[in-house]
Amino acid sequence: MSNPRSVTVPRILGIDPGSTIMGFAVVDGGARPAQCVIDCLRLPKTDFPTRLGLIFERLTAVIAEWQPDEMAIENVFVSRNAASALKLGQARGAAICAGAAAGLPVAEYTPSQIKQAVVGRGSADKTQIQHMVAMLLAVPGKLQADAADAAAVALCHAHTAHTAGRLQQGTQRSRARA
Amino acid sequence: MSNPRSVTVPRILGIDPGSTIMGFAVVDGGARPAQCVIDCLRLPKTDFPTRLGLIFERLTAVIAEWQPDEMAIENVFVSRNAASALKLGQARGAAICAGAAAGLPVAEYTPSQIKQAVVGRGSADKTQIQHMVAMLLAVPGKLQADAADAAAVALCHAHTAHTAGRLQQGTQRSRARA
Repeated sequence: MSNPRSVTVPRILGIDPGSTIMGFAVVDGGARPAQCVIDCLRLPKTDFPTRLGLIFERLTAVIAEWQPDEMAIENVFVSRNAASALKLGQARGAAICAGAAAGLPVAEYTPSQIKQAVVGRGSADKTQIQHMVAMLLAVPGKLQADAADAAAVALCHAHTAHTAGRLQQGTQRSRARA
Repeated sequence: MSNPRSVTVPRILGIDPGSTIMGFAVVDGGARPAQCVIDCLRLPKTDFPTRLGLIFERLTAVIAEWQPDEMAIENVFVSRNAASALKLGQARGAAICAGAAAGLPVAEYTPSQIKQAVVGRGSADKTQIQHMVAMLLAVPGKLQADAADAAAVALCHAHTAHTAGRLQQGTQRSRARA
């Protein structure tokens, strides 16, 4: 049940990485972004290699179903402790591999870039992100926090790519006039 | 150019994870282990997603060429800082995904388990591992350190699996006699 879409609008897979819950969202970019799916993987408390295999397998299935053109993932900076950074890093590595194996270009955004793009403030909190994502993508009801974060990184990428595209068009028009 | 082998001996892919150099080795297990390949991937200093994609792609190619039955990887404990743990975690996640995507069961061993199995002392140093791996697998000349570590984890897994197999045979024989 993949969505019909215009060929000029890139379809983006957004990922909020986590080793117990991994948010994912597929969003059609452009001036008026539209959601395809916003959800999260709840990973079983099995051994870590099995969990990483599941992340890879399930995200590969999401990519096969929704056929995104690009992937965007939150760039995490963990200052708490090395053990949790290692776990998060492995989960993030597994998610990126699913994108790379499917040939998707992978873009990374910092939490403040994502908040700035979606809420307009780099210091926005979780609730504000959930609210803005639901409003921008016309989602009724409250979104799960990790799913909302995944949609936010997809929207951040859509916004960045759209702005870059318009800037390029502007430059081309200026050159044509000159 | 895959190696012929007996069906009763498991072929093991050993991995020494790293985000700049990743050691890999394919070893045929059993009482007298034999090497198929001992080498390392030297990763280019590109952006991290590209590097993770390369780890996945190249290890997938190693698996396709040598057809291992099982994978063994060093379980890292990083106490230095969260940023390097995150990088190492991502590289390790990418390597595990290559194994999981190919359907290989993945076993994890701590550095001291590996040293104990290969050198006989949990506190052995790098040079002793390089020396023992080269001797056990009849490799002429000196091995690169990360490649030797990858072979050591494969040997550790071969040793553990072989011992478990012999213990099981012993139990079955005792039961048959009883």
